[in-house]
Amino acid sequence: MPETATLGLYGLGTMGSALALNILDNGFGLHVSNRSSDAVLEFVKEAGTEGLADKLTGSDSLTAMVDAMPAPRAIILMVPSGKPVDATIDMLIPLLAKGDTIIDAGNSDFRDTIRRTEGIEAQGLTFIGMGVSGGEDGARHGPSIMVGGTPAAWDATREVIEAIAAKFDGAACADHLGPGGAGHFVKTVHNGIEYADMQLIAEIYGLMRYGCNQSPSDIGAVFETWNKGALESYLVEITGNVLQAVDSETQKPAVDVILDAAGQKGTGRWTAIEAIRMGQSANVIEAAVAARAWSSEGAARTVGAGIYDAPRGELALGDGDFESALLVGRIVSYAQGFRILAAASEEFEWSIDPARTAEVWRAGCIIRSAMLDDIASAFRSDLPEGQLIFADHFAAIIKDALPALRRVVSAATAAGHAVPALASALGFLDTMGCARGTADLIQAQRDFFGRHGFVRLDGRRDQHGPWWD
Amino acid sequence: MPETATLGLYGLGTMGSALALNILDNGFGLHVSNRSSDAVLEFVKEAGTEGLADKLTGSDSLTAMVDAMPAPRAIILMVPSGKPVDATIDMLIPLLAKGDTIIDAGNSDFRDTIRRTEGIEAQGLTFIGMGVSGGEDGARHGPSIMVGGTPAAWDATREVIEAIAAKFDGAACADHLGPGGAGHFVKTVHNGIEYADMQLIAEIYGLMRYGCNQSPSDIGAVFETWNKGALESYLVEITGNVLQAVDSETQKPAVDVILDAAGQKGTGRWTAIEAIRMGQSANVIEAAVAARAWSSEGAARTVGAGIYDAPRGELALGDGDFESALLVGRIVSYAQGFRILAAASEEFEWSIDPARTAEVWRAGCIIRSAMLDDIASAFRSDLPEGQLIFADHFAAIIKDALPALRRVVSAATAAGHAVPALASALGFLDTMGCARGTADLIQAQRDFFGRHGFVRLDGRRDQHGPWWD
Repeated sequence: MPETATLGLYGLGTMGSALALNILDNGFGLHVSNRSSDAVLEFVKEAGTEGLADKLTGSDSLTAMVDAMPAPRAIILMVPSGKPVDATIDMLIPLLAKGDTIIDAGNSDFRDTIRRTEGIEAQGLTFIGMGVSGGEDGARHGPSIMVGGTPAAWDATREVIEAIAAKFDGAACADHLGPGGAGHFVKTVHNGIEYADMQLIAEIYGLMRYGCNQSPSDIGAVFETWNKGALESYLVEITGNVLQAVDSETQKPAVDVILDAAGQKGTGRWTAIEAIRMGQSANVIEAAVAARAWSSEGAARTVGAGIYDAPRGELALGDGDFESALLVGRIVSYAQGFRILAAASEEFEWSIDPARTAEVWRAGCIIRSAMLDDIASAFRSDLPEGQLIFADHFAAIIKDALPALRRVVSAATAAGHAVPALASALGFLDTMGCARGTADLIQAQRDFFGRHGFVRLDGRRDQHGPWWD
Repeated sequence: MPETATLGLYGLGTMGSALALNILDNGFGLHVSNRSSDAVLEFVKEAGTEGLADKLTGSDSLTAMVDAMPAPRAIILMVPSGKPVDATIDMLIPLLAKGDTIIDAGNSDFRDTIRRTEGIEAQGLTFIGMGVSGGEDGARHGPSIMVGGTPAAWDATREVIEAIAAKFDGAACADHLGPGGAGHFVKTVHNGIEYADMQLIAEIYGLMRYGCNQSPSDIGAVFETWNKGALESYLVEITGNVLQAVDSETQKPAVDVILDAAGQKGTGRWTAIEAIRMGQSANVIEAAVAARAWSSEGAARTVGAGIYDAPRGELALGDGDFESALLVGRIVSYAQGFRILAAASEEFEWSIDPARTAEVWRAGCIIRSAMLDDIASAFRSDLPEGQLIFADHFAAIIKDALPALRRVVSAATAAGHAVPALASALGFLDTMGCARGTADLIQAQRDFFGRHGFVRLDGRRDQHGPWWD
């Protein structure tokens, strides 16, 4: 922020309030407002309770807030993605002057961000699409922040963004990752990886629970142990917590009173869709999106259980197998996420630095894990074919743990446990580890029925099979 | 067609020429033209050779063709999908008069078809988006035809469309399946199922070849046998053919001289993307799209083979296991295709009849198979939850063959063979056959880090876990 710039935040929902307190906590002055002014009063009161109201100005409308702010201004929007963002921007533009900055800190679709950047910057204003991860707690105490915008926009906002971001060994987990939609795209892929990691964990839990007859709290204790090893991460940590939690009403394990129908907010789907569109099929993320979708078909699954009586038989597997399988699955999830980033970076000419992206994810965000530091190092080395799974460090881990993933998938599929994400990770590795696949047959079929032609192994193109002689 | 309507066809590529000959063969008069007029001369000559030039008029431009046609006219476009279709329509509109019909018979994106329908019908013209499947041979001797448009548009073109379509027990494999984009959407899903079936076949081939050391010609002979049983279908038939074909230059099996990099033209991707967008994740189709994408990464796979040395070990499985596994995989592919159709039909208010769709696919198209008649019957019965896999007929087959699919996937994953589509089919069945999944853990995690709330099994909504107490 240039020293004179005034900071505003509009949208005091859970995430907006938390981020506002974080900004105040870091000593910055802040103007806030909200669509309904009740929330403004509440927030000012809450900030006072926390001793953070000194540099806070609450206004009962967007207009009043902007009027109260000396130019140049930087206004953070924390409103629901989609139409509310456009509506707020439309209200805001006539109130602002050249040199002012709008920052969309919601979970926007990166294509909307690209469109908005063009529209807003054409009017002499600056726009930033800012991905923020870490949930309420992250927003309050330090989220991971992925910034998309012009270098000038980054210069104008860097001080406050780095101040409020999570820190890893003292380094801010925030960076300018590319222009326009790049920040929101990186956040979308972050969420895709998050979906994949959560699904892998849920499958491992299912195998331990229903295949090895371990109780949720015992499994939670195992996750707690894993969190001290190679799987150290926020998601493994909280899995340990929630599995050991007890429902106070029933005294049952907390997970056992929860309906097994998972919600989704769109970013996982967006990731899978963009990946497929770019020819980068991220099958572990796809499996996670599918599993969430199917989880909502409880009525159908109940009918199916009556018909198929899926056995979910006993599994002769140890916790070490599960740990290794989850580790390989996680590496593949990250690797597929970075494949998508590389493809998008090339298509949109974003020049996203994968090493910096990994570093921004090291703290504050949901997918933070011990592995990300190694991922950053790997991307700074010479990666064969640009693939994370071929980096020396990760190839060694995979080679060591792959037999366990094989045992787990093989035993689970034989015994009737659904392991779509684990099986997808294995399918990806077995495909990428096989020089001669079976697509020759597909090319032969396509030439047979559609005269599509094929490339011969000797390099000659547009060839046809003997069926056309 | 009203008796007086004149028929034209623009675009004399492989598919256009074949369809034009088919029309002439059925006794209809036809005007033809093409962007380059050389192709018109060639086509008129070819039609003459086949004794089909009597009712044919060739014109050297679109304008000349329309000028030569008495109104009302129905003009079939057979040009590459995308911009060429729009460009041709733009040229065509000023040449036409109220009551004329434009038929786009290419592989258009159904969203383009919806947009074009609106634009064209606003001008008093009639538009049909017509999916045509069957490759060159189908177009020439009878394709499967999926029509989208108004009932009036169907009335105006039904006679010729039914005449040129494939016949199944005398019934035309063509129908009006819905308005606007419905025809092209059904064709897109057809292609998605085609991708899935081809990938399943390629995986089974790979297991027989590399896991059981059978030669391509021996495997081809097995497919020939399967084509006399429950797997009877065009794709199994031609697999038998291509696997037994020999390259004339090298005397090797034909498939062994073909590069294992499969092309794709977009419809498979579109299907997977639309499915995910609608929350209908069709994981077998997704696996097929992924496998084609990865097949093009030959350089990376060669690196991977050096690192991982994927074993592709021996498999103790018999041909009967493979036949059953392929059968279940195919049922799931079809079932997922029909799930997508149902979701799109609801979203776009198309009222697509799944039974009629199955009947239209019984002959002429690439995915024609003995199973489609049973699918039509199943959709005319009372399907639990609308799911094909719960129909008595198919549930019985699946229950019988599921253990074999399990054996195949379990053995293949243990031995290092990539079977992403087969594993996806099994993952779908094991998910849909399990009343209590593991998404309760995912909901617990989401509530923990994002305070998203969950539904309790007792039905209470917006609940939070003890971690928030």
